[in-house]
Amino acid sequence: MDLSHELALGIDIGGTNTKWGVVNHRGEIVQKGDLRTDAHETVEGFIDAIYDTLKPVLAGFGDEITIKGIGVGAPNGNYYKGTIEYAPNLHWKGVIPMTQLMTQKFGLPCSLTNDANAAAVGEMMYGAARGMKDFIMITLGTGVGSGIVANGQLILGHDGFAGELGHTCIRPGGRKHWGTGLHGSLEAYCSATGIVLTAQELLANSNDDSLLRQFSEEDLDSKKVYECAVNGDPIAAETYRFTGQVLGEALANFVMFSSPEAIILFGGVIKAGDLLMNPTRQHMEANLLPIFQNKVRLVFSELKEADAAILGASALVWEIKE
Amino acid sequence: MDLSHELALGIDIGGTNTKWGVVNHRGEIVQKGDLRTDAHETVEGFIDAIYDTLKPVLAGFGDEITIKGIGVGAPNGNYYKGTIEYAPNLHWKGVIPMTQLMTQKFGLPCSLTNDANAAAVGEMMYGAARGMKDFIMITLGTGVGSGIVANGQLILGHDGFAGELGHTCIRPGGRKHWGTGLHGSLEAYCSATGIVLTAQELLANSNDDSLLRQFSEEDLDSKKVYECAVNGDPIAAETYRFTGQVLGEALANFVMFSSPEAIILFGGVIKAGDLLMNPTRQHMEANLLPIFQNKVRLVFSELKEADAAILGASALVWEIKE
Repeated sequence: MDLSHELALGIDIGGTNTKWGVVNHRGEIVQKGDLRTDAHETVEGFIDAIYDTLKPVLAGFGDEITIKGIGVGAPNGNYYKGTIEYAPNLHWKGVIPMTQLMTQKFGLPCSLTNDANAAAVGEMMYGAARGMKDFIMITLGTGVGSGIVANGQLILGHDGFAGELGHTCIRPGGRKHWGTGLHGSLEAYCSATGIVLTAQELLANSNDDSLLRQFSEEDLDSKKVYECAVNGDPIAAETYRFTGQVLGEALANFVMFSSPEAIILFGGVIKAGDLLMNPTRQHMEANLLPIFQNKVRLVFSELKEADAAILGASALVWEIKE
Repeated sequence: MDLSHELALGIDIGGTNTKWGVVNHRGEIVQKGDLRTDAHETVEGFIDAIYDTLKPVLAGFGDEITIKGIGVGAPNGNYYKGTIEYAPNLHWKGVIPMTQLMTQKFGLPCSLTNDANAAAVGEMMYGAARGMKDFIMITLGTGVGSGIVANGQLILGHDGFAGELGHTCIRPGGRKHWGTGLHGSLEAYCSATGIVLTAQELLANSNDDSLLRQFSEEDLDSKKVYECAVNGDPIAAETYRFTGQVLGEALANFVMFSSPEAIILFGGVIKAGDLLMNPTRQHMEANLLPIFQNKVRLVFSELKEADAAILGASALVWEIKE
């Protein structure tokens, strides 16, 4: 069957930006772009804006190309219902019937899942998890997200909300999360925000000189902590060591849950490379039962960060039954 | 198709005892019995003994009945390989090719999984999880085991060892496990052994009178702690409250992993009833994101403890492809 005339539209909705790409069956993004999410107070306004952007793009492919449908990755996206539900980092509150609204506007079938699940599907089809049936993808960015694949299928749970590993507790009674109010969650420590909080705590509890002290509280970000660590600053280095410890302990728990072949790390925080990876691997292995040790591949994503969620969202389209 | 002439043999191998049952397609145990596991230093000796027990039983069903095969639940049982691997509570060390040995002896096809997975399958086919596609079964006994079902399938992992939730860490740096050496695992707190250790710690840190003080260290068991709690002893009551807190916190993490419809608790420890269930439910709910709250059914098993693993093991037989 010649599928070269078919394309899918993949859309990754984030709190600040929304990225879109038109993708072929080989996972090549033939055209892409982005627009602001947070510029639109209502979801209808957002959909109007993305439609106005994409209408000429899709028309430009001409009559010989069929746009098969739209796949969307979004925070708190529910695959079963096609809804975005109570997403804390979006302006649109409550339950948004996203696939319904998109289909009404574009006249195309639409499928949706959460952004981390979409990235996991992208990684399974086109990235580091090609050919794997059991893996976990952890996205380490502003927040910590996850997509879990077992038996070759996304784990969605009975209600479509499975895979919120960033909110699992790894330090009972520990740091209070700024958004959820839960104590000691993985996201509270291993997100970009969590890394900065760890650095600030270490600075507050120390009188030692540190390169980090040149930055005001507002200016400090996880990238600057990384740069100071690379330049030999002990407090910055300890920040990443501790982050890796907490992440490694959490990953050990996840391994003993679903025994994945690999854990794939993804997102802005992984730019720290070995500074993060080495303590993570060490503490993961140290907290595993012997039957799990030295078996799980801990790797970085092979996809460009901007592309994974678009690719994964577009991959949903090929599964839409008409 | 009339299946009434078919029976399956289910075997549940535990560290001390092995239970067997001959089961029909409706999940009725038509005959059952048990024998000592720990009386046999070699697996060959054990298989000879169970064969000598079962040969007359199976012959007794006559020619009109077909024994379709053997299903085995065993600690550290590997479904993919049919092996028992490095089970700490069995005399037989290393990797035991259990299904191969059983088939050689009995001349019947044999399938195997770990004991907690077998119990989960039993619960799904005949117990509290009938009709569910997403649930977690937690066995609270001498140890803490688990069987996880998602998308209607057992989560086995890439190597067949998934679902070791008893060994996940819920108190980093906490109590050292007597067997694994890992710190702060769920099993270290919520097994029968863990409950006794909690009571002993509370007694050691208090000068208050307690009904528990009438027992020597060797005599104290989780049942006696339960009885003292029922009789109003504050330290015994606190023991179960704390056990429920740790269990509830762990269950919250599991819910955010696979978003199950229900969590089914099973095993000797659940005889404590509401004394355990109330704090467990409270702390589970308190540690969940709002999207998961008040959705997960937390229930006790509906199967007799002795029967669940036999039923689940026998259910493996119906899936054996000849």
